[in-house]
Amino acid sequence: MTKVSILGSTGTIGRNALEVIRRHARHFRVTALAGGTNVRLLAEQVREFRPRLVSVGRKEDAEVLRTEFARSAVRVVHGPEGAEIVGGEPKSDLVLSAITGINGLKPTLAAVRAGKRVALANKESLVVAGALLKKEARASGAVIIPVDSEHSAVFQCLAGEDRRNVKKVTLTASGGPFFRTPLAELKTKTIRETLDHPRWKMGKKVTVDSATLMNKGLELIEARWLFDLAPGELAVLIHPQSIVHALVEMRDGSVLAQLGPTDMKVPIQVALTYPERLDAVLPPLNLARVRSLEFYPVDLRRFPMLRLALWALEERESAPVALNAANEAAVEAFLGGRIRFSDIYEVVRRTVARHRPRRVGGLDDILDVDGQARALALRYIAQRT
Amino acid sequence: MTKVSILGSTGTIGRNALEVIRRHARHFRVTALAGGTNVRLLAEQVREFRPRLVSVGRKEDAEVLRTEFARSAVRVVHGPEGAEIVGGEPKSDLVLSAITGINGLKPTLAAVRAGKRVALANKESLVVAGALLKKEARASGAVIIPVDSEHSAVFQCLAGEDRRNVKKVTLTASGGPFFRTPLAELKTKTIRETLDHPRWKMGKKVTVDSATLMNKGLELIEARWLFDLAPGELAVLIHPQSIVHALVEMRDGSVLAQLGPTDMKVPIQVALTYPERLDAVLPPLNLARVRSLEFYPVDLRRFPMLRLALWALEERESAPVALNAANEAAVEAFLGGRIRFSDIYEVVRRTVARHRPRRVGGLDDILDVDGQARALALRYIAQRT
Repeated sequence: MTKVSILGSTGTIGRNALEVIRRHARHFRVTALAGGTNVRLLAEQVREFRPRLVSVGRKEDAEVLRTEFARSAVRVVHGPEGAEIVGGEPKSDLVLSAITGINGLKPTLAAVRAGKRVALANKESLVVAGALLKKEARASGAVIIPVDSEHSAVFQCLAGEDRRNVKKVTLTASGGPFFRTPLAELKTKTIRETLDHPRWKMGKKVTVDSATLMNKGLELIEARWLFDLAPGELAVLIHPQSIVHALVEMRDGSVLAQLGPTDMKVPIQVALTYPERLDAVLPPLNLARVRSLEFYPVDLRRFPMLRLALWALEERESAPVALNAANEAAVEAFLGGRIRFSDIYEVVRRTVARHRPRRVGGLDDILDVDGQARALALRYIAQRT
Repeated sequence: MTKVSILGSTGTIGRNALEVIRRHARHFRVTALAGGTNVRLLAEQVREFRPRLVSVGRKEDAEVLRTEFARSAVRVVHGPEGAEIVGGEPKSDLVLSAITGINGLKPTLAAVRAGKRVALANKESLVVAGALLKKEARASGAVIIPVDSEHSAVFQCLAGEDRRNVKKVTLTASGGPFFRTPLAELKTKTIRETLDHPRWKMGKKVTVDSATLMNKGLELIEARWLFDLAPGELAVLIHPQSIVHALVEMRDGSVLAQLGPTDMKVPIQVALTYPERLDAVLPPLNLARVRSLEFYPVDLRRFPMLRLALWALEERESAPVALNAANEAAVEAFLGGRIRFSDIYEVVRRTVARHRPRRVGGLDDILDVDGQARALALRYIAQRT
């Protein structure tokens, strides 16, 4: 019986995780949930899973929940501090970190500092604060288990292998909705077209990042921290079917890979049950039905965001923080209808071009760089609207 | 420094193994070699690798070698007993078992009884004597490491995994030269067409077995013993590119796979160096260049030999022995120009149809069944020539 807290329980990852937990009810107990603004779904989750602690975004929603659950023992908190309380909740064994963007950082840090097993879906935490999280995990004994399908794949391939024998880790990318779109048409792609991902059902932010390939760039930086890899040991391949999630080349030329249905419930379950495995909640992969798995090199003219991410991967320190902040601001502006698809890249490119790299130590440094880059990005966004 | 003996050093696997050893000269020392009739190549190998013991097929060739190496300390033995002496040679750490067919069984058994690490390329040993070899290995502490690319793949995928979580092991088959040949044309396929394998450079026996898919059938039986699997946990997929060598589905739907260049040097090196890994002797796999990996279900009408192998896999005991004996006799007759390609199946089918399954205990039982089935097969062959 694993006691689980979920940061971001009303998001795509959180809902999928609760589906896995529902299907394996004897193996899990939900200790705490943190949601955002979807208070109705959060209340349903509280009714079904009976956590002892719940956090919601706004104070007024906390009051609603307190009234609704007045006769139960659930404690209701709210806001960023509420999510941090959920992250550090003492009774849980495992914290699923699935709040999107830099907002996920502080609650994740709370879970790491509390020495939890942390199933990490919030890639931005490692992107902006990889060194800090690793240091804190070493001190507390926390174990970070990846939830991203690509990193879950690498994690599984590396089990039983000596890390010194790893020569190259390749993350696959579906290529998103615009892999075959003529370059000239990319400028005018709409929000609806961008969110129409051919393979994965995901949240809006990560779906836009998949269309620009920034998602894969962030994943490279994440992989660097998760698996202690040098930039030269990391690569990306376009694989439109999204069946092979990652490949690990060993020094002797043997390549290990993990494959699976294109559904986040598989890596979520792997992370929730590690080092055990439980029965599948999905039909098995049928390769004879998939028939063909294709692989293509990445065209950096089509996906220039990846070039910016490769720069940040090499540069380390403040560079990934600035990159992520600019990208979050730009994607939000795109989803708000304020800038065009191709402006996302322009905003991020200009922001990182103006960014003065510096060392980042603790959380304050990181949030400081984040704030500055975000302000800069907002200026460029304003110029384009 | 691993001390290696090689059974079948002049065959395809043996030569590839010596190439790996040559490239990693500091890591290996060759202790003993056993060859067959290619005495010139064997003499060259003795000159280059300086084993302390060498076995050759015929007595007169042993005399030739004794004369040639009169001034060196190499001991020369010959015949089936000579190969057994090489298998059990006390100084070696690892024995590569790469004699083709049931002739490989006794020398392999000698290596297993001597408690060696046994890198097993001779699949027939496990097919006919799996229970015996496993029992002897338990008693002596011998470790069997597969050399077949498919089994090497499974072996690598299972590292770090709990066997109880394995749901299905799928071996891939290239489909051989006749995967797309119209069924009516199969009857008249020549030796040259049959030996023209599209992917793998292998010995003649295994190349014919690849064309009939009997090779995959034998591999299923081999996998059963190597990994303690039930027949229902084993499957085959046609994969013409031969890049993915095997897939292991875990109970949670995660699928692990091993990929690599289509060259036996990779699995040979994995087996020779396990649990370490050394640098590759080949260029790395380039999936973007391969571009597409295809998978097809097996059509049992095209490959009826696989149906016979599935029967033997279920039946156990004497059934795989009879199957293998009939197949060895039939393939030899085909390679000798005495029967047609489609006769291979007819000979094996009739032989196993007439076979009365019985329990097999020790080596004598096995050789007895082998002899009877072989005699039966030879009768059917005689009727067709």
